[in-house]
Amino acid sequence: MHDRSDLLLPRDRYFGPEPRQREIAQHLYTEVAGLPLVCPHGHVDPRMFADPDYSFGSPADLLIIPDHYVFRMLYSQGVGLEALGVPLRQTFEVSETSKVSLETDHRTIWQTFADRFYLFRATPTGMWLTQELVEVFGVQEKLTGDSAQRIYDQIADCLVRPEFRPRALFERFNIEVLATTDAATDPLAHHQALAASSWSGRIIPTLRPDAVVNLHAPGWRQNVAALAAVSGIETGSYRGFIQALEDRRAYFKSLGAAATDHAALTPYTAELSDAEAETIFGRGLAGRATADDAVRFAGHMLMEMARMSIEDGLVMQLHPGSFRNHNVEVFARHGLDKGADIPIATEYTRNLKPLLDKYGRDARLRLILFTLDETTYSRELAPLAGHYPALRLGPPWWFFDSLNGMTRYLDQVVETAGLYNTAGFNDDTRAFPSIPARHDLWRRASVNWLAGLVVRGIVDLCDAEDMAHDMAYRLAKQAYRL
Amino acid sequence: MHDRSDLLLPRDRYFGPEPRQREIAQHLYTEVAGLPLVCPHGHVDPRMFADPDYSFGSPADLLIIPDHYVFRMLYSQGVGLEALGVPLRQTFEVSETSKVSLETDHRTIWQTFADRFYLFRATPTGMWLTQELVEVFGVQEKLTGDSAQRIYDQIADCLVRPEFRPRALFERFNIEVLATTDAATDPLAHHQALAASSWSGRIIPTLRPDAVVNLHAPGWRQNVAALAAVSGIETGSYRGFIQALEDRRAYFKSLGAAATDHAALTPYTAELSDAEAETIFGRGLAGRATADDAVRFAGHMLMEMARMSIEDGLVMQLHPGSFRNHNVEVFARHGLDKGADIPIATEYTRNLKPLLDKYGRDARLRLILFTLDETTYSRELAPLAGHYPALRLGPPWWFFDSLNGMTRYLDQVVETAGLYNTAGFNDDTRAFPSIPARHDLWRRASVNWLAGLVVRGIVDLCDAEDMAHDMAYRLAKQAYRL
Amino acid sequence: MHDRSDLLLPRDRYFGPEPRQREIAQHLYTEVAGLPLVCPHGHVDPRMFADPDYSFGSPADLLIIPDHYVFRMLYSQGVGLEALGVPLRQTFEVSETSKVSLETDHRTIWQTFADRFYLFRATPTGMWLTQELVEVFGVQEKLTGDSAQRIYDQIADCLVRPEFRPRALFERFNIEVLATTDAATDPLAHHQALAASSWSGRIIPTLRPDAVVNLHAPGWRQNVAALAAVSGIETGSYRGFIQALEDRRAYFKSLGAAATDHAALTPYTAELSDAEAETIFGRGLAGRATADDAVRFAGHMLMEMARMSIEDGLVMQLHPGSFRNHNVEVFARHGLDKGADIPIATEYTRNLKPLLDKYGRDARLRLILFTLDETTYSRELAPLAGHYPALRLGPPWWFFDSLNGMTRYLDQVVETAGLYNTAGFNDDTRAFPSIPARHDLWRRASVNWLAGLVVRGIVDLCDAEDMAHDMAYRLAKQAYRL
Repeated sequence: MHDRSDLLLPRDRYFGPEPRQREIAQHLYTEVAGLPLVCPHGHVDPRMFADPDYSFGSPADLLIIPDHYVFRMLYSQGVGLEALGVPLRQTFEVSETSKVSLETDHRTIWQTFADRFYLFRATPTGMWLTQELVEVFGVQEKLTGDSAQRIYDQIADCLVRPEFRPRALFERFNIEVLATTDAATDPLAHHQALAASSWSGRIIPTLRPDAVVNLHAPGWRQNVAALAAVSGIETGSYRGFIQALEDRRAYFKSLGAAATDHAALTPYTAELSDAEAETIFGRGLAGRATADDAVRFAGHMLMEMARMSIEDGLVMQLHPGSFRNHNVEVFARHGLDKGADIPIATEYTRNLKPLLDKYGRDARLRLILFTLDETTYSRELAPLAGHYPALRLGPPWWFFDSLNGMTRYLDQVVETAGLYNTAGFNDDTRAFPSIPARHDLWRRASVNWLAGLVVRGIVDLCDAEDMAHDMAYRLAKQAYRL
Repeated sequence: MHDRSDLLLPRDRYFGPEPRQREIAQHLYTEVAGLPLVCPHGHVDPRMFADPDYSFGSPADLLIIPDHYVFRMLYSQGVGLEALGVPLRQTFEVSETSKVSLETDHRTIWQTFADRFYLFRATPTGMWLTQELVEVFGVQEKLTGDSAQRIYDQIADCLVRPEFRPRALFERFNIEVLATTDAATDPLAHHQALAASSWSGRIIPTLRPDAVVNLHAPGWRQNVAALAAVSGIETGSYRGFIQALEDRRAYFKSLGAAATDHAALTPYTAELSDAEAETIFGRGLAGRATADDAVRFAGHMLMEMARMSIEDGLVMQLHPGSFRNHNVEVFARHGLDKGADIPIATEYTRNLKPLLDKYGRDARLRLILFTLDETTYSRELAPLAGHYPALRLGPPWWFFDSLNGMTRYLDQVVETAGLYNTAGFNDDTRAFPSIPARHDLWRRASVNWLAGLVVRGIVDLCDAEDMAHDMAYRLAKQAYRL
Repeated sequence: MHDRSDLLLPRDRYFGPEPRQREIAQHLYTEVAGLPLVCPHGHVDPRMFADPDYSFGSPADLLIIPDHYVFRMLYSQGVGLEALGVPLRQTFEVSETSKVSLETDHRTIWQTFADRFYLFRATPTGMWLTQELVEVFGVQEKLTGDSAQRIYDQIADCLVRPEFRPRALFERFNIEVLATTDAATDPLAHHQALAASSWSGRIIPTLRPDAVVNLHAPGWRQNVAALAAVSGIETGSYRGFIQALEDRRAYFKSLGAAATDHAALTPYTAELSDAEAETIFGRGLAGRATADDAVRFAGHMLMEMARMSIEDGLVMQLHPGSFRNHNVEVFARHGLDKGADIPIATEYTRNLKPLLDKYGRDARLRLILFTLDETTYSRELAPLAGHYPALRLGPPWWFFDSLNGMTRYLDQVVETAGLYNTAGFNDDTRAFPSIPARHDLWRRASVNWLAGLVVRGIVDLCDAEDMAHDMAYRLAKQAYRL
């Protein structure tokens, strides 16, 4: 009855144990499991689709070296990032005392990982990886130190075959649309190439202007100069800077963009006068911007971006609350996005008030809020989204893209905000082959939550079927106007 | 076996699915379902009982136009408050550009609501409304756009009948006592009329002095003048102001009041010297009070109110942490209490220390604390209530008056505070016909939680029966000294 | 089939009701229930083991008078601490007005407690006490006002017997190692006596230097003088002070210490220059240290202690976030640790950054973090522990050492930090006979949580068995390097 993969990946996984709830969950899951995947926010490299011959490299290239979810856990248990092949920054000068040789043997890296795969027990990363091994690569045994090299062989054998090229997997995964995340200064060459190609997969860019709106971003002045170069609009003045950004929005939109994305340490918003904005921008160009300037300018630019969203219809996403690059040495050696970003407490009620006062009633604005501070779900975000027409709540983000994270989100958000002020799911990943596993976890968590409502008499089965479809597919499309 | 209403409103609703727990929950529910309703805190208009011929008007008058739980959700999805008949402030001058016609056709309002009733899926508002339709008005079909006008007819037919007058429903609902919430300057004419009438329903006032203790409340000086007028005591000095408040407390008490109620942005408390209080009060009267003055005076007045509670035995309720009227335009057009109040993070441990240092050990003081910041349940409120004799914890408030809100409250509070430092339930509603549904939700949530304790061997069935009775009835009476 | 004690203390207590989950939980429990108890952090008095004839006194001496978990709940319901025999501070001068006679009749104290034992329904204290009565003292009836004196007799009868001496109970409880908590100035006479004795029980000290590193600790200057006396090293200079602390660490280590422990209002860390440290230390000795001095010195000393841990291998524990002695009168009358410590919101991401920047990558440092602010589990602590090699997360602490507290901890921590960045369990108790009940609660909560993972297909049974063993035994030993 059960093949090996059903032991590794039970068919009714993630459903609660009570038989009636499980039966309803299974019924709802059957209804939505085959729906196309809508991926309105993520970090997959568009190059892999622009180049029809793109190869993922070795199993370690695919699954370990670029995945900060994986290597941060090994690092936390004393495995150096060099031993996992995580590259050093080109600008990093290795002194004698800190010299560590970068592991280049990918079988050794894989063995190091497999020996410690037990560290991922009960984590979403472990759950995604297991599903990926079984469903994408057909692995039929548990990953351990013993099975490591056999599984390496099996994945490596797959990766050389044409059906494991990104475009083939995109189709196999049944992805309807995939949004990438791209700097405002990105010329979008890969998106242009895709637009010009005969391949029908829908890959759309998303404009992320953080590097030009944050005065203290590394290389801000060069970024602003690059903005001028790519847009052909002078950015020596604040006014030109704004025009260049508007130009980039139009360009992104012409290549299919549906949204912009904004990271910020806090969701602080406040409008500057034109004169103040010009002055602060000028101090930035002169290299004399203060910490307060940077905060005020970032808060002002969120207001400006909301204004532009009203004008051009691009959906606005806000991802605040991550203290980036917390580990100074990891940042110095390896750079950004190395699993060293740590959340902080985040305040929305007061911080967003200036923006909401000005634009919150305008349904042309669609502002999707995310959080790394779960305390804000029930205290601030659900009440805000349950009131302001411009707001929607994004799905549980990053650390909370997990079975418990989703359950807490649904239990804390929906009673107050209602389901229809949420934005469905997005996978937010740079790990392309993990996309089906991530959506599957969301769909299973959703139907299990809905089945819990049905057995408690809170919604009837007919409503639950409708809600399951909304959560798996429709809400994401509607929220991002896709 | 099942009639239609059992499909709309399952008999075992809100109980967990595991059969043994459900059986125990049902047993406990049977024990408490028929107990009288104790309603020590709420916002029902006393006029509806003072006037024996009071009529609720149309179904929209009863269920939509005055209920910010309902219209905020519709507003969040782009339905204007005018389209729902929510009245404009008399002082609001409608300019040409913002002119929107107020919908006056109540069948159209009802249809707008019914078309979107799916927005309330899995929300407490949806659960209360469904129960109200079924149990109060005998509706036997689901509310949808299709059934909207039939259900409107059915409710409208009811509302003209004598058994749907407020006094008749009060008796049908088996309400033992109902507290209203009344400004310190309210002459309590309706309560006087009730005291003089032959009707036996117990409707008691609650003194809420926010408008006279908050120096920056709209119209504070007029409010203080009104306090003088209603009490006959000069309020031109701080000393007179305090005497007038003491006089009002005595007057409220003479009409049955058991409690006072205090909203505040934060639970800050700190005592001023008489001279400081007089100076700040004087600046208030002169229209020169600073923001800091207002904070300090509010913190001082909480201390004063605690002192008075010790003297006269009125229970003190504190409801902090709501950022009121967050949406400037909604406030300008429609005024207070329009679903635009958003919670903020709240701190109790340090803020309440001055009050607790002075009065916290005095069991004559009964201070019932509420919160809109669920993080304080386990971190601050339960440890405080599990120590100070003067403290009790109020039930989950506002957004948290919900199945999940109650479960989180019980799971986070009781282990540390114990059940007997909680204050049972109160419905906190201005929607009179929703009162039975709200108490029923609490009773079901309570017995389901208790059944969970029994099946886990944490309490025995005998204790659970006693606790069920406490939670449904006795704790509220004891906490409010009724 | 069931004897009386199974009614009081069901064999399958604390397991979820669903039969399959319960069966798996019971299976896992059977695997770990008999493992020795590892107690790496607690507050048991070492004298009770050093003196082979130590007696616990009366039932009230054992279970009520010293246990702030017990008397705070009675106090919150209006029972004075004097009525429970809680001693007054020797320095407290009882004025005429505040004179209350200390109850000295232990049967009366016991009756007061038993009459109100219902207050502990659904609390961990109630669960521990019941288990203690049944399993340690063989009680077969429920504790009520009626049974109070019979149960008193039964306990009193036990306590005079040799098998109820601490050493005998230590062996009966199957404790492998028990760490005490000891001031830096403690000469450790009892630990010396134990080292010299023939008894084989492993009782180890833990160095807690709060009283000498907190410039505003009561009697700080005397404490620093005592440090000089006990170490034989001059502490008139900062440099000498550091040397004396290093000397004490070496001495504690020679008597088996594995760890140090640090309380602090916040986890603030920041390094001072030697000159700054010397200056602030000097102001402290001169009695002129400011509040800011105390904060900076405490933050600096955490850095220093981390440095010393790297050098000598002692594990470092940090217990921040308790506002101690919140009730001024209880502190004045009865002193420390009287159930009046209230948590505050706590921030780790920014506060710990200086320490982690300098030492967080060094696996020689083992820093175990605790919290009284559960919001930090998923927001800060799990991301930090899931990244930094030096960090581990301690078990749910104090108020959260409870069934719900453990469940929330596991659900919020493990997905992000992984199980292997946690530190297993510690009982943190001064109530020696409650130790088995506390570990049993943890083991039951753990296996129930694991069974929940198995029935959801998140981990397989084989992994769950391994994890159960880790949680019950191995993680604590590994985390504390025992």
